[in-house]
Amino acid sequence: MNIVVVNGSIVGSNTKAVMEQLVVKFERLENAKVSFINLADYELQFSDGRNYIDYEGDTKFVTETLMKADGIVIGTPIFQASIPGSLKNLFDLLPVDAFRNKVLSIVVTAGSSKHYLVAEQQLKPILSYMKGQVVPSYVFIREVDILRQKIINDDVVFRLDRLVEDTITLIEVYQDIQKKKEDQYDF
Amino acid sequence: MNIVVVNGSIVGSNTKAVMEQLVVKFERLENAKVSFINLADYELQFSDGRNYIDYEGDTKFVTETLMKADGIVIGTPIFQASIPGSLKNLFDLLPVDAFRNKVLSIVVTAGSSKHYLVAEQQLKPILSYMKGQVVPSYVFIREVDILRQKIINDDVVFRLDRLVEDTITLIEVYQDIQKKKEDQYDF
Amino acid sequence: MNIVVVNGSIVGSNTKAVMEQLVVKFERLENAKVSFINLADYELQFSDGRNYIDYEGDTKFVTETLMKADGIVIGTPIFQASIPGSLKNLFDLLPVDAFRNKVLSIVVTAGSSKHYLVAEQQLKPILSYMKGQVVPSYVFIREVDILRQKIINDDVVFRLDRLVEDTITLIEVYQDIQKKKEDQYDF
Amino acid sequence: MNIVVVNGSIVGSNTKAVMEQLVVKFERLENAKVSFINLADYELQFSDGRNYIDYEGDTKFVTETLMKADGIVIGTPIFQASIPGSLKNLFDLLPVDAFRNKVLSIVVTAGSSKHYLVAEQQLKPILSYMKGQVVPSYVFIREVDILRQKIINDDVVFRLDRLVEDTITLIEVYQDIQKKKEDQYDF
Repeated sequence: MNIVVVNGSIVGSNTKAVMEQLVVKFERLENAKVSFINLADYELQFSDGRNYIDYEGDTKFVTETLMKADGIVIGTPIFQASIPGSLKNLFDLLPVDAFRNKVLSIVVTAGSSKHYLVAEQQLKPILSYMKGQVVPSYVFIREVDILRQKIINDDVVFRLDRLVEDTITLIEVYQDIQKKKEDQYDF
Repeated sequence: MNIVVVNGSIVGSNTKAVMEQLVVKFERLENAKVSFINLADYELQFSDGRNYIDYEGDTKFVTETLMKADGIVIGTPIFQASIPGSLKNLFDLLPVDAFRNKVLSIVVTAGSSKHYLVAEQQLKPILSYMKGQVVPSYVFIREVDILRQKIINDDVVFRLDRLVEDTITLIEVYQDIQKKKEDQYDF
Repeated sequence: MNIVVVNGSIVGSNTKAVMEQLVVKFERLENAKVSFINLADYELQFSDGRNYIDYEGDTKFVTETLMKADGIVIGTPIFQASIPGSLKNLFDLLPVDAFRNKVLSIVVTAGSSKHYLVAEQQLKPILSYMKGQVVPSYVFIREVDILRQKIINDDVVFRLDRLVEDTITLIEVYQDIQKKKEDQYDF
Repeated sequence: MNIVVVNGSIVGSNTKAVMEQLVVKFERLENAKVSFINLADYELQFSDGRNYIDYEGDTKFVTETLMKADGIVIGTPIFQASIPGSLKNLFDLLPVDAFRNKVLSIVVTAGSSKHYLVAEQQLKPILSYMKGQVVPSYVFIREVDILRQKIINDDVVFRLDRLVEDTITLIEVYQDIQKKKEDQYDF
């Protein structure tokens, strides 16, 4: 299965550090082919309404990588009580139903626990609108749990491990469901 | 008083057409100096975490224009059940408390009434976090109410007129409150 | 499997009419045992903080019925831009993680399409907090689609059929996942 | 001016303790007539769709008290990631535009900072729908700040004082605006 790990921010190092650890965790799995999209490494255009396949360069590469995924782990900091414009723009570049039959999971890094519900209220409704199958539990990481780009809280490591497991399980489950539905109509 | 009308989208013509009409309405008022920021006319960078005064060119111009406003009318289409990345990025470029002592009002254009609550649930919490005084009632305009960049529904025109009035009234009110508070500490 | 269909409102006839049709649809399935909880038929207390098993009478019966369910279909009208107090009180009567390992699906009846996102923004975050596995797509029904307690829009009937199917599939899937996890730890 | 302080919960003592302190603060003001509605002291019916004036007993008394208010301070704990059913039911008992020309302010007590955004995402949209003028900043109080029904954090006391001030100021402001509008049409 095809996993894409995304850092939705071009600022700061915390979200990037966590997502890189997730890449390592997925790489250890047998069946998973994992790619890392760190938005800071690409020059994306603002969505101008075109279909994603009509862009060129980085914008084309990043959107096509996402469209080919079976599962996407979205990493995001909280800016102004919501997701960064860079991450929202990535969603804008994709079709309305881009996440149909894809499993999505969420990792949030934030300065304060007060931002805990941003993923629930600002991010999940977007993913749900785009038809994604969202892993219900997300991992919320406070800045104090990261020191010099290392996670220093074992509970966070444990929850990231469980997120990897939940993501893989849900992908397998939806591939099973898809297969059953196809078999049903196949004669 | 200093009013800035913003079109938060770089795609499409509906939001732009409505915001241009609002500019005309504000220009008719005696005390209002109005500027129009149509994001499609500027090349904004993605926020990289710098203070807004440290950017250059269009990014510096647009953020400084917003920071000098007494009132801002934010026009936005709905992309993927939320505001466009281009508009969220504009907020990311500003300080956390950028809208303190500013009055904000909202105009939404959308294809379907189903998106009516996006402004309430996705946009107002951001403006509130940034300390803005938000005019409670926003104007929601469906695409069928706009034809060749003209508003063809009188009720929409009426609601835009009321939005202009509410915005001006709330600015006057907050300037009064500020003055009272300053007088109180002035001796 | 054990299905509970709930009408979360004690007012009006539209939500009740739709939920009764859903009961009939579930009764046609081989493996499903279905119960109907129409809140208007019970006298529920306001939650006073007790554990649900410590209540008596209707409150005890209704909460225990929900706790035994594998899947719950929640029907709700929209009152004051949110779910009714009667439905929220039902959730308050249950434990924090009451919906762990349960599949939940949602049916909304409303006067206007403008209320479409209430389920996404006001109901799903509650169900998610209570650890429910929520069927992503909900059925939104406008009053014009119901006449004298009959659904007069074929598309609504089609979407209800799909909701039944999605609910059953997700229950099967989560029972499979649970079984796998148990087998894993079983030696 | 007519202030009503409401404790929206019938469970626990923290929200009640805080709201009682707010009553004392309002009582010290010259122009304010303050009433305290502690929902635990009344037996309210679930809304059955009737107009509020058609209820009797406690339900009639509480709803009429709210309808006569110029300002309402709503105190709420967080149950299941939202407001209690008892508080939502109170809103359901009132007309759709019950809060027109009323100023509303919010006090939240919660066990964890993770619930901070519930007021923003679950409560404000309801108050806004009911046409209330909501004081943007709410006071969020964690359980650790209350000991034996006393507030033991000075910062919380300070923020409650400011909430009282903000509520009064906004009421005065809206009474001014109302007066101006009436004068305008008065000849």
